[in-house]
Amino acid sequence: MRLAMIGLGKMGGNMARRLRRGGIEVVGYDRAAETVAQLATETGMIAASSVADAVGKLAAPRVVWLMLPSGGPTEQQIRELAPMLSRGDIIVDGGNSNYHDSQRRGAWLAEQGIGFMDAGTSGGVWGLENGYCLMVGASPEVAKILEPVLKALAPAADRGWAHVGPVGAGHFTKMIHNGIEYGMMQAFAEGLELMHGKQEFNLDLAQITELWRHSSVVRSWLLDLTAEALQHDQKLEHIAPYVADSGEGRWTAVEAVDQGVAAPVLTLALQMRFASQDEAGYGYRVLSVMRNAFGGHAVKQAGE
Amino acid sequence: MRLAMIGLGKMGGNMARRLRRGGIEVVGYDRAAETVAQLATETGMIAASSVADAVGKLAAPRVVWLMLPSGGPTEQQIRELAPMLSRGDIIVDGGNSNYHDSQRRGAWLAEQGIGFMDAGTSGGVWGLENGYCLMVGASPEVAKILEPVLKALAPAADRGWAHVGPVGAGHFTKMIHNGIEYGMMQAFAEGLELMHGKQEFNLDLAQITELWRHSSVVRSWLLDLTAEALQHDQKLEHIAPYVADSGEGRWTAVEAVDQGVAAPVLTLALQMRFASQDEAGYGYRVLSVMRNAFGGHAVKQAGE
Repeated sequence: MRLAMIGLGKMGGNMARRLRRGGIEVVGYDRAAETVAQLATETGMIAASSVADAVGKLAAPRVVWLMLPSGGPTEQQIRELAPMLSRGDIIVDGGNSNYHDSQRRGAWLAEQGIGFMDAGTSGGVWGLENGYCLMVGASPEVAKILEPVLKALAPAADRGWAHVGPVGAGHFTKMIHNGIEYGMMQAFAEGLELMHGKQEFNLDLAQITELWRHSSVVRSWLLDLTAEALQHDQKLEHIAPYVADSGEGRWTAVEAVDQGVAAPVLTLALQMRFASQDEAGYGYRVLSVMRNAFGGHAVKQAGE
Repeated sequence: MRLAMIGLGKMGGNMARRLRRGGIEVVGYDRAAETVAQLATETGMIAASSVADAVGKLAAPRVVWLMLPSGGPTEQQIRELAPMLSRGDIIVDGGNSNYHDSQRRGAWLAEQGIGFMDAGTSGGVWGLENGYCLMVGASPEVAKILEPVLKALAPAADRGWAHVGPVGAGHFTKMIHNGIEYGMMQAFAEGLELMHGKQEFNLDLAQITELWRHSSVVRSWLLDLTAEALQHDQKLEHIAPYVADSGEGRWTAVEAVDQGVAAPVLTLALQMRFASQDEAGYGYRVLSVMRNAFGGHAVKQAGE
């Protein structure tokens, strides 16, 4: 089995490594030529100097796996790539694309006879050693062709990957996975903040998170990582109280609105990240002014 | 080491079993005489016919571990038990008491020279085999005396238990643990509802939860249990959409208010349980009437 991997960054590079370990032939391309050269030397990956060069090094049915930032970069790459491919070839989007985009792209490629698979991929920087958790959406035929690749990337051939439904279902499932992740993270964050705030008990949060890892109801991989991090530093004074967010959390909140289904915890976990990003705090300023206006309550001046 | 265990229900009974396996002598009492007899036969536990009888079978410093419903039953038992004990004896509350109550009881017992330990206990029905996760609050002297007991109950002598702080700190930590548990559960529930609601993909939630158990970011014990349950039934038509709650979830929300710290996800996870319990739906009826009043929107009649 041979495929092309386009995009050899943090995710794509390690996925190429894991595929090579699994005996899959990988033709690799990245805009950063030194990354391509390094992976070729390290893993025996076949270096490509361009996307067209990578496609040229494949035999039908050609499989091109994209690991690119979602949105513009993935869209542009698929538009450029499609004319280089023939009927029966397959594009896999392993990035974090919006599932509506994946459905649209799958339909557009299908008109040209090109197969498409959306592969939601979890595992982050730990995937190289632990394997990647893969949720894929595709036709049965396309999923069948990719099976050896999925088995090599997954934690084991028989687990951690699944063909969950038609095109779009993979990225949909990954989106929900990330939405749940936001909620779980926020739950831990709030609980730890309440323990940190209970000064009279002077709790050792490194001790408690470590203890919870064993037989408690909240034991989880996120707790494992948190306990490990708090062993080194539990004051967190050098970490800014600012939390970024990426697409899936937002899309999950939109999905809840689209379905008309209440998902307050997933939605609020996202909104708390927005609040952490809101350094201007205009809404809080408005509230302060209103309290002053109707109740004569003191207003804290900026810089006070 | 010998101690008395008062209350041999779902938790206390299995804890007595695990203590016996660990070589601890247990004097057991429960209102249900047949439970006492059964455990005595099964585990070699020393049967007691009353709390006073149990206390009489201990040597100083006497240790009495209570596994009773929180609130009234625990309060009453401590009030009745204290006069039977002497200076240096110890009462352990292994139930889910409010930490403010534990602080008050600890102070009251301390006035009489009686030691107190609040032992937050997680592990549920799985604790017998896996061990119990124990978060204990006590003076260093009391914690030291109980150490062999904690090591026998925990998953292993060196993990899953900790002396986290003074009296009250154990139940406080357990309260926060349960608050986090509420948030995690609600996050999974909302995510699964959104997947269930996406009919066009016809997702197999048993397949997806099983797949997530391997290398995904949301892997956790709660996910393990959920995946197992969904293998047998994922329609859940015979389960009523009603979720009970117990004290810790409520106390966590109150703690956030007391501290003036935002904990919206933990609070909302609790409130969603209230919403599930609210069969009368008076607030929804009010909203429906208001929409009709200002906008002439149709009102759905009861039974419609």
